[in-house]
Amino acid sequence: MEKNMLVGVDIGGTTVKIALIDIEGTMKMKWEINTNTAEHGKYIVSDIVHSVEEKLKENAISKDNVIGIGLGAPGFIDVEKGLIFEAVNLGWKDFALKEKMEEAIHIPTFVDNDANLAAVGEMWQGAGEGAENLLCVTLGTGVGGGVIAGGEIIHGQSGMAGEIGHIATVLENGAPCNCGKKGCLETVASATGIARLGTEAATVSTAGVLKDTLEANGALTAKDVFDAAKAGDTVAQNVVKEASHHLGLVLANLANALNPEKIVLGGGVSKAGDILVGEIKKYFTSYAIPKIGRETHIKIATLGNDAGVYGAAWLAKQG
Amino acid sequence: MEKNMLVGVDIGGTTVKIALIDIEGTMKMKWEINTNTAEHGKYIVSDIVHSVEEKLKENAISKDNVIGIGLGAPGFIDVEKGLIFEAVNLGWKDFALKEKMEEAIHIPTFVDNDANLAAVGEMWQGAGEGAENLLCVTLGTGVGGGVIAGGEIIHGQSGMAGEIGHIATVLENGAPCNCGKKGCLETVASATGIARLGTEAATVSTAGVLKDTLEANGALTAKDVFDAAKAGDTVAQNVVKEASHHLGLVLANLANALNPEKIVLGGGVSKAGDILVGEIKKYFTSYAIPKIGRETHIKIATLGNDAGVYGAAWLAKQG
Repeated sequence: MEKNMLVGVDIGGTTVKIALIDIEGTMKMKWEINTNTAEHGKYIVSDIVHSVEEKLKENAISKDNVIGIGLGAPGFIDVEKGLIFEAVNLGWKDFALKEKMEEAIHIPTFVDNDANLAAVGEMWQGAGEGAENLLCVTLGTGVGGGVIAGGEIIHGQSGMAGEIGHIATVLENGAPCNCGKKGCLETVASATGIARLGTEAATVSTAGVLKDTLEANGALTAKDVFDAAKAGDTVAQNVVKEASHHLGLVLANLANALNPEKIVLGGGVSKAGDILVGEIKKYFTSYAIPKIGRETHIKIATLGNDAGVYGAAWLAKQG
Repeated sequence: MEKNMLVGVDIGGTTVKIALIDIEGTMKMKWEINTNTAEHGKYIVSDIVHSVEEKLKENAISKDNVIGIGLGAPGFIDVEKGLIFEAVNLGWKDFALKEKMEEAIHIPTFVDNDANLAAVGEMWQGAGEGAENLLCVTLGTGVGGGVIAGGEIIHGQSGMAGEIGHIATVLENGAPCNCGKKGCLETVASATGIARLGTEAATVSTAGVLKDTLEANGALTAKDVFDAAKAGDTVAQNVVKEASHHLGLVLANLANALNPEKIVLGGGVSKAGDILVGEIKKYFTSYAIPKIGRETHIKIATLGNDAGVYGAAWLAKQG
């Protein structure tokens, strides 16, 4: 029986995304189950096991076909042991995820941080296109990151590497960040940060699309800011420039230290597309070492919400 | 015959440092030869080969005892092929260093960038004390760096990783840098940069040790600035604070992305010792994610000019 199937699992606070992906990276099927966080998340493992076993059976795939299972989870993780130190959204603390999964399903299991796996997912099957030196930045409610060097995920000393969102970039009068500091990249480049900058700018502006949207809706989203910028609103365009300036600076500084082949931007904010990438590239080039500025490709992620399960499958493939 | 000896070679523009180091990391002997850069450096390889063969013979060490030779060279390098793209100081261009060495001496040879090898030298036998996640910064005439993650040197896509000196940090009115940009870390944290800041500050100050030194000598060195700061001169202390502020910020931002166990500061400027490290730690802690701020150790390099040969020997040991 040919061993050619991988199971990728992306455990989030609301849903668990699961996919069967073959060793070549072709997704055979994907589905979701709810995340049951009751009683400190004690049912999550058995829910995943039952769901995977059921799907394998339905599709006449034997467990013997499965090379391994990769699991992405939020929070701080000992990847060697597959131990979750703490995943607040799931209720886990010192949770032996790898051990529990393997005991229940008898398939080799590998665990890593969900942001790291989204990065390797993009490396393997997405915008990274196999780049072994890759920086991935997720611009969502917060700003997360994954660093891949020489084809390996960089974890750092205590699994905290990739915290790009908390790089200090607004040094004077920075807005407070969830981490307790001020002026982190996240405060200006996340969806929340861009909405805040847009609201502040529209409030003091005299007229324009962005001000009209704010007055009509009582609040602004990051998408409102990008839509207004695309419609030619200079207030919104300046907000996009400000966010892009900080992103371009931070990415150039990281690129000087790490010399990645590609930088992949994912998350909801990245859907703004060319207007965002164009501005970021401009600032990136002005701050990077000239050769790095010329040679580093900045791209939008292509896998969307599937990046995590692709990355988890890749992890299982590596073994 | 026991294979337990490594040869570490650090090729500089003026001298070539060579050492015999055993597999445990104990240096058995070290010596230097002049770097003959005549005729595009065509004699450098044979000079090294003759010198190594002579020393082995003198000390009754057979070539069969030697596991390998590690070579550190300045410039851009293809480490897989052991090819030096360009080393301006040596006159080399597309120079097949590994191939030429192996043809001449019949011992396996490995090549890497000298700054990277200084970093692994400190990792192996110096202030890094075996830390597998390590950031090394050399504060000399310029500012160089080496990034080690998971015990491996990070080279990046085209061998340019570790260019910490060219991270943009002075965003307004930055001084011109040798790289063609303005406001790079090197312009404020290298020996040259600190001397420049000191001269500017002393010139406009009304009195003090630093101003006296400037007037007596007609120029200032970085050491003058640190000496005056230690003697209580507030103008000099502010220069130390300014350089430390930029270093603390850049290192904190890199630590957020890479989560190193240790950061090792080397080069002439690092000899300033506690007055520099104390200030850097203060700024580092204020900019890093709190857990990273608490857990990252910042230390002064301990191997001095021997870091390169230790790192070269480590490279030969890895094979």
